[in-house]
Amino acid sequence: MEKVLKGSCIIGQSGGPTAVINASAYGVIRTALDSDCITKVYGAAHGIRGVLEDKLYIMDEEDPAELELLKNTPSSELGSVRYKIADPDTDDTDYKRILEIFKKYDVRYFFYNGGNDSMDTCEKISRYMNKVGYECRVIGVPKTIDNDLFGTDHCPGFGSAAKYIATSCMEVSKDARVYDTGMITIIEIMGRHAGWLAGAAALASYCGSGPDLIYLPETDFDMDKFFADVENIYNKTGKVLVAVSEGIHYSDGSFVSEAKTSATDGFGHAQLGGLAVRLANAVKERTGAKVRGIELSLLQRCGAHLASKTDVDEAVLAGKTAVEAAISGESGKMVAFERGVRCGRYVCKTKLIPLDSVANLEKKVPLEWITPEGNNVTQEFIDYALPLIQGEPKRATENSLPRYAKLKKVLAK
Amino acid sequence: MEKVLKGSCIIGQSGGPTAVINASAYGVIRTALDSDCITKVYGAAHGIRGVLEDKLYIMDEEDPAELELLKNTPSSELGSVRYKIADPDTDDTDYKRILEIFKKYDVRYFFYNGGNDSMDTCEKISRYMNKVGYECRVIGVPKTIDNDLFGTDHCPGFGSAAKYIATSCMEVSKDARVYDTGMITIIEIMGRHAGWLAGAAALASYCGSGPDLIYLPETDFDMDKFFADVENIYNKTGKVLVAVSEGIHYSDGSFVSEAKTSATDGFGHAQLGGLAVRLANAVKERTGAKVRGIELSLLQRCGAHLASKTDVDEAVLAGKTAVEAAISGESGKMVAFERGVRCGRYVCKTKLIPLDSVANLEKKVPLEWITPEGNNVTQEFIDYALPLIQGEPKRATENSLPRYAKLKKVLAK
Repeated sequence: MEKVLKGSCIIGQSGGPTAVINASAYGVIRTALDSDCITKVYGAAHGIRGVLEDKLYIMDEEDPAELELLKNTPSSELGSVRYKIADPDTDDTDYKRILEIFKKYDVRYFFYNGGNDSMDTCEKISRYMNKVGYECRVIGVPKTIDNDLFGTDHCPGFGSAAKYIATSCMEVSKDARVYDTGMITIIEIMGRHAGWLAGAAALASYCGSGPDLIYLPETDFDMDKFFADVENIYNKTGKVLVAVSEGIHYSDGSFVSEAKTSATDGFGHAQLGGLAVRLANAVKERTGAKVRGIELSLLQRCGAHLASKTDVDEAVLAGKTAVEAAISGESGKMVAFERGVRCGRYVCKTKLIPLDSVANLEKKVPLEWITPEGNNVTQEFIDYALPLIQGEPKRATENSLPRYAKLKKVLAK
Repeated sequence: MEKVLKGSCIIGQSGGPTAVINASAYGVIRTALDSDCITKVYGAAHGIRGVLEDKLYIMDEEDPAELELLKNTPSSELGSVRYKIADPDTDDTDYKRILEIFKKYDVRYFFYNGGNDSMDTCEKISRYMNKVGYECRVIGVPKTIDNDLFGTDHCPGFGSAAKYIATSCMEVSKDARVYDTGMITIIEIMGRHAGWLAGAAALASYCGSGPDLIYLPETDFDMDKFFADVENIYNKTGKVLVAVSEGIHYSDGSFVSEAKTSATDGFGHAQLGGLAVRLANAVKERTGAKVRGIELSLLQRCGAHLASKTDVDEAVLAGKTAVEAAISGESGKMVAFERGVRCGRYVCKTKLIPLDSVANLEKKVPLEWITPEGNNVTQEFIDYALPLIQGEPKRATENSLPRYAKLKKVLAK
């Protein structure tokens, strides 16, 4: 048994928000408030920037009922940041300041909730504190709708975004097939380098009605093959629904969304606006069909009203596990998920993995989960993703609209 | 008491789909199936086109449980159409064919579920059948997310779309304010001539967090004033969320979305793509702020997972009322809603209004419900719209995704 380390803790949130990042913050805050050795719980305003600028909210002052509403409040309630911290070996300015703040508030526990870059921040802080001999236990709590964090079966945030995407694709699929005239609809889904979210659109097709074609950034995009795929279905049924990842790219690595106008790249006219509209216009020029481009945009990452209960519960669990692990002596680790099966049903267990095995790596959709034609995902993908969207969490509403947490955010002096 | 008219009925759906048009179809079909004098219930494939092409589905053959799922199945399950029928006084070709089909299937009841144009179709068919002395009772069932039908307090479809818009604006509002850097977000909402849907975004602000500014097509849009409005808030808070109706237009009547590129119209560069992206880019050029344009697109009209129970119940009621009215002898009418108050609470009653008082008219947001600055709606608008989004209907799910009605669609021979 590790020695008891008494002191306060900081929780910070970083990177693009999700539907459940606040659920993880709740897991951290609630567990920390309930623990004997954590003396005070601070929430950093806008992640590491709040530490650097000495802007810490006292979580002990919050109403417990409001804190609990964090479980279904989307976005990062403490505020997020995209600050890239230097390597401590080359420039330790920020770290000296962080140490100063840690000492000022007797911070012995630091929890950072984010994706790739945040785990990198976390790892550097952990390394620096070790180096200077300041005892502080640092644990990363994973989050990202992109699901591209290395070393974990999946990430909190993905399941809810996947559910939003699948539900929206089902609804659009109904709408886009309603007329007796031809129609080609293109839906653009987030995911610059990994196609987990675009692949989630296949859950709609699997469960009733969804996209006919799905293109992921794991394979090279070929405009001629795309035209052929679309026309093939269009000529048979008159209706085509396509889901594309924003990150699809040609074989030379250039993004389709950024392709320059030319006679050969399929974009006959100068096109600004999103990828979906560009692809829709290119298809229109070719087929003469009525087309529509739809970008799910921010909606897919903040759609807490469609959160997956599995995802919310696991997000809370990740936060709770982080605190428990730190109290028991762990540091320099990230909470990760391991998938298991019990009585034939999906179960999720937590584990700890070294931060330096996670930071700056990306986990992509395995190529064998993409059909040989490169225009859909396989049953393996469905089997992987379907358990993650299950269940409807209780949602607080007021006037039939979401009732989100209202924190007092009392600043520490 | 009107004499009992025995015969079969047809229900058709027309115009843009909504989250609850199938709930109205259910109201018609269920009530017709249960009535003694309606001998057979047909659903027309793609509205009036299904009648002209003799494509009628036999609703009597459907599984009652699947029919009931129509209450939460978005889009027009029988198929929709945008066919503009001629005036019977100038060209009666279509009407002769309709009469032929009516006679073939002994159709004595015709229910048409749609918006403005559909009520026009309905009125013409009613007029023609009267003229040729074929006894057929014709009743219109209103639907439109646009809420612009004349003679009714509100339209089935509006409440659910308004709820989708308000919820999405709340969620985006959370996300768009998360960073410690400036951000201006523009959300584009449907509504070419009437601003009911854009106004619904104000429900988000009223209930917690939503747009700072809302522009409706009922007033003229002024780009300079828009810039001033946005910059005023941006300079104070660094975050601006704007909702615009797709139909906003300059004082000369030209749509902002279609404005040609010029140095003076605020669009410095050639811009294609949606209004939201165009406005966002114009604001970016001006302020240098990070911007994002989001178009709610089809999502807002097919978002049955966020349907208002009030809206679903009223949509079913509208269908039921249509059948009961027809059986009791009414014809040439549309079902309309009247708002009342009982024990201080909103209640909705049905009434019948002549089809020719509805067809081709548009009901807009009263100017006194728009703020003098023209950049928001007043409390009167909130009081009007808030009751319409209340309640969560039971939704059938499978694998935590929507389970929609699966009709057999057996064609009549």
